[in-house]
Amino acid sequence: MRIVLIGFGNLGRGLSRAFIQKAGFLRETHGLVPRVVAAVDEFGAAVDEKGLNLAGLLNAAENKGTVAACEGGKRGKTALDIIENVEADVVYELTPTNIKTGEPGLTHIKRAMLAGKHVITSNKGPLVVAFRELDSLAKKCGVEFRYSASVGGAVPLIGLARKLLAGNEIREIRGVLNGTTNYILTRMSTEGAPFEIVLREAQELRIAEKDPTLDIRGIDTACKITILANSILGMNAKLSDVRVTGIDRISPEAIRLAKEAGQTIKLIGIARRGSLEVGPKLVPLGHPLAVSGTLNAVTFELDLAREISIAGFGAGPKETSSSLLGDLIDIHRTLGG
Amino acid sequence: MRIVLIGFGNLGRGLSRAFIQKAGFLRETHGLVPRVVAAVDEFGAAVDEKGLNLAGLLNAAENKGTVAACEGGKRGKTALDIIENVEADVVYELTPTNIKTGEPGLTHIKRAMLAGKHVITSNKGPLVVAFRELDSLAKKCGVEFRYSASVGGAVPLIGLARKLLAGNEIREIRGVLNGTTNYILTRMSTEGAPFEIVLREAQELRIAEKDPTLDIRGIDTACKITILANSILGMNAKLSDVRVTGIDRISPEAIRLAKEAGQTIKLIGIARRGSLEVGPKLVPLGHPLAVSGTLNAVTFELDLAREISIAGFGAGPKETSSSLLGDLIDIHRTLGG
Repeated sequence: MRIVLIGFGNLGRGLSRAFIQKAGFLRETHGLVPRVVAAVDEFGAAVDEKGLNLAGLLNAAENKGTVAACEGGKRGKTALDIIENVEADVVYELTPTNIKTGEPGLTHIKRAMLAGKHVITSNKGPLVVAFRELDSLAKKCGVEFRYSASVGGAVPLIGLARKLLAGNEIREIRGVLNGTTNYILTRMSTEGAPFEIVLREAQELRIAEKDPTLDIRGIDTACKITILANSILGMNAKLSDVRVTGIDRISPEAIRLAKEAGQTIKLIGIARRGSLEVGPKLVPLGHPLAVSGTLNAVTFELDLAREISIAGFGAGPKETSSSLLGDLIDIHRTLGG
Repeated sequence: MRIVLIGFGNLGRGLSRAFIQKAGFLRETHGLVPRVVAAVDEFGAAVDEKGLNLAGLLNAAENKGTVAACEGGKRGKTALDIIENVEADVVYELTPTNIKTGEPGLTHIKRAMLAGKHVITSNKGPLVVAFRELDSLAKKCGVEFRYSASVGGAVPLIGLARKLLAGNEIREIRGVLNGTTNYILTRMSTEGAPFEIVLREAQELRIAEKDPTLDIRGIDTACKITILANSILGMNAKLSDVRVTGIDRISPEAIRLAKEAGQTIKLIGIARRGSLEVGPKLVPLGHPLAVSGTLNAVTFELDLAREISIAGFGAGPKETSSSLLGDLIDIHRTLGG
């Protein structure tokens, strides 16, 4: 399969490493030979229709600051050049998220679909801004569209709901969808320390970003619950439909009281038809959502199975490559590979 | 799809109720119209190639003790008669489990495959006794073979591993696979009560059976870890390959000490290539395996995603019908429906 990588930051590099590491496995187990014919970053692109040397690509990006520095590379070439002019089967859209405009990912995805290319993305922006539009466009263009990595990182939430729980009606989705806030709440609980101190520690460990607003105010979780509501519950929700409360006002006392009552406080996103919410909630210890550290976890409330929950790492380039690769294998199978 | 139900106990009845309740949903969402053309229990059978009236079937079984009492029913007709002589697409094998001989399920499944029928089963016995043989026979006969409900009840373990984690190598499977022992350990932990007293309480609530040996000695968990090892890790393991320790010697003191250290004791089945084990293990509170009550939970250790865990109800006729129905939808999709 001929593959184009748009964006070559942590995720693009993690995916390239997975392609190298798992070449034999993918060929033997799935009959799948991914051939990266182009890669683009903000400075330029590298193209080779016979397949780029991925080790060389990683080396150029890590040591020379751009994929354009590798053999076959060209500074100034843009993502749209590549999307429209390089023959390929699948475009990975892995540029940074902009939740207001969805750009540049939104345009990349649309152009790729219009050019008849299947699209896999980890980018929440386009999905939050234009989910229905992209979903319709994919159908209209007859291409596959996958976005497992956009919510839950390594955790295959959308596949679980659509493929494995297919006999059930899904009544509600509740989840711990942000590893940073879960880490902070976990440390506040185990150490009894106040929010500000734990946040600073998390920033030093690079678990929290320098500007942690999107995480701690619940916006990142709201984006993810919006995507789940649209893709799994068939809603047509916007980010502005989510009632959001962050974790920045949670006191050590509140956490201590919860603990005494056999509960823990988690930042939970909740989607049910007609109502979207993000906020701190009590979760009983021993419930599948009461997971520690940077883990993510989601519970589906169902008519037959009652509750099915899934947990795993919601971030990390290697972990997320599990979903990015899973989507490729799924497209390969869907096309009869 | 023409369906035969072999066995009409709790699971057969739960599945029939799900067929009634979800007829519209299955038709509209999946284009699937299940038509039960025969049902058999130990006293006889009911057959109607146009499709049995499921309400009548449930009524006969519940009020008259056998499906043979409903319209179109005949006492004395056996499962093998039905499997070989009734035209059908899918045979559900739902008879009681015998983990020594696998019978009568083993013969039912083989005959159904040889008769060119797809098979869905919840029956651990045949899978523990003859997994490889059945797997090969299905391929030889060109039929689909599904057994999601045999391990984890409502929790789609095998589908998760095979379909959604397909980009990963699975290095280890660890799980809480028996709801009864998990309930007992949870109550011992919350109440500080001794094993015998909690067991009696569980028996009164019918969470534990009158003879709870298979559960509390870890045999049931050993059966399930054997099935997971064979179906997911591609092993050729027998029940006798599993090193098993039960929970009947766990003291309230051990549980209290674990709790003080932020841990909990769970009966865990572990499969990795070359080693199968069942026994009580410490699990940190906040780990996805530290689930309470009758829940089951399984963690897959993976090369890319690191750890993915899934939890849900491991028993109950309604809950298990989620997996039994999921397998039918999966066969329907596989056959291009």
